[in-house]
Amino acid sequence: MSAASRRPPFGPPLVFVATLDRPALNDADAHHLGRVLRLRAGDVLTAADGAGRWRECTYRATAQLEISGEVFEEPMPEPPITIAFALTKADKPELVVQKLTELGVDRVVAFRAARSIVLWDEAKAARNVERWRSVAREAAMQSRRSRLPIIEPISTFAEVAGRPGAALSVAGGAPPGLHLPTVLVGPEGGWSPEEDATPMPRVAFGDHVLRAETAAITACSVVAAIRSRLAGDLSHPDAS
Amino acid sequence: MSAASRRPPFGPPLVFVATLDRPALNDADAHHLGRVLRLRAGDVLTAADGAGRWRECTYRATAQLEISGEVFEEPMPEPPITIAFALTKADKPELVVQKLTELGVDRVVAFRAARSIVLWDEAKAARNVERWRSVAREAAMQSRRSRLPIIEPISTFAEVAGRPGAALSVAGGAPPGLHLPTVLVGPEGGWSPEEDATPMPRVAFGDHVLRAETAAITACSVVAAIRSRLAGDLSHPDAS
Repeated sequence: MSAASRRPPFGPPLVFVATLDRPALNDADAHHLGRVLRLRAGDVLTAADGAGRWRECTYRATAQLEISGEVFEEPMPEPPITIAFALTKADKPELVVQKLTELGVDRVVAFRAARSIVLWDEAKAARNVERWRSVAREAAMQSRRSRLPIIEPISTFAEVAGRPGAALSVAGGAPPGLHLPTVLVGPEGGWSPEEDATPMPRVAFGDHVLRAETAAITACSVVAAIRSRLAGDLSHPDAS
Repeated sequence: MSAASRRPPFGPPLVFVATLDRPALNDADAHHLGRVLRLRAGDVLTAADGAGRWRECTYRATAQLEISGEVFEEPMPEPPITIAFALTKADKPELVVQKLTELGVDRVVAFRAARSIVLWDEAKAARNVERWRSVAREAAMQSRRSRLPIIEPISTFAEVAGRPGAALSVAGGAPPGLHLPTVLVGPEGGWSPEEDATPMPRVAFGDHVLRAETAAITACSVVAAIRSRLAGDLSHPDAS
């Protein structure tokens, strides 16, 4: 039976569970809800499966949650938004993943650009992607999203640039829009001449020079606002 | 004589000086340009007065800059954007001020909301506002803005809510727009019932629950994108 379409409520906390049929908290979430958010037995919360399905439950001060509502499905936003960002330094990717998740991103992919300063071996790359998935999970709970964004493995410029609907973020680019829901954001040092010469649409998100992480966040802000009909789409599909 | 209207170039570094007639670097900027950015004698840079006027200069590896271009004035964006954010914890305001400056904010004001957790005495408030002004100066240089945003003293909800063109940022609000260029962003705990009941326009910037700092950043992103004609204005002036 398919679930009725509805968004999770903003009020109660949202937590991810392995199954909505027998929703149970993992140790970390049990600690967070009980000790940090100080939930009490009888409080209502939302249990979600991470894939868009959720139901109201009641907290009983144990790991097992009591089911108190039917299963709904959060509508899938159209089009899905992908933010592809050049690998950058330090803890910036964690800030980017957290903010993009709150803002409604559907896919996040870090890629190696010509001027990416960071060089990770396979093991370190895998550890970082796992860490970002954990950051996205926390941010999704905080922002009441029942569907987790997909945090992809680290990719290459050529691969992300070749995706349908992909646009390069550049100063002085054209207005972004829903026919270009995949945005590539460059590293601090900017695009290399070869990357910059790639024949693909070019979009802009502001009038000034933006730090790499600011560009990724504002790209998602603006495209998501257009998708939510909070701002108009001024892009020209024919121009791409 | 009035200066011709032109934006500073994105390429060369931008630095603030006390006067464009005899532009000279302060010690911190001299260190930054020489040791961090590794400028060499003969390199071009932009000297700006912080109020929108700037000129091309040549670095001579001393504090005194050589004038190499006439004085221009960066166009004043219309309407000016004000982001008013509820005082919040820790180093979040610094992140907010940095990002808003890059995104083109004109005025930033922190205010005490009913649920603001932070309570500062006069001296601490003044120290923090000074610190934010320093953060804004650095961010303006990095983003090639010749006009510094105004970082106001800490205010109250009632004062900022009473400004012309002010709107309350709330989940489920109306589309933002240029007739509402002053946006109030609440604290982590949300607006109090009294604040929420204030008769004023209400705007939204996304579909999910946003952290306070994310709400401030995305509010500026979206309104600035509309102002730059990178997204359309879907607001209804009559509705406010």
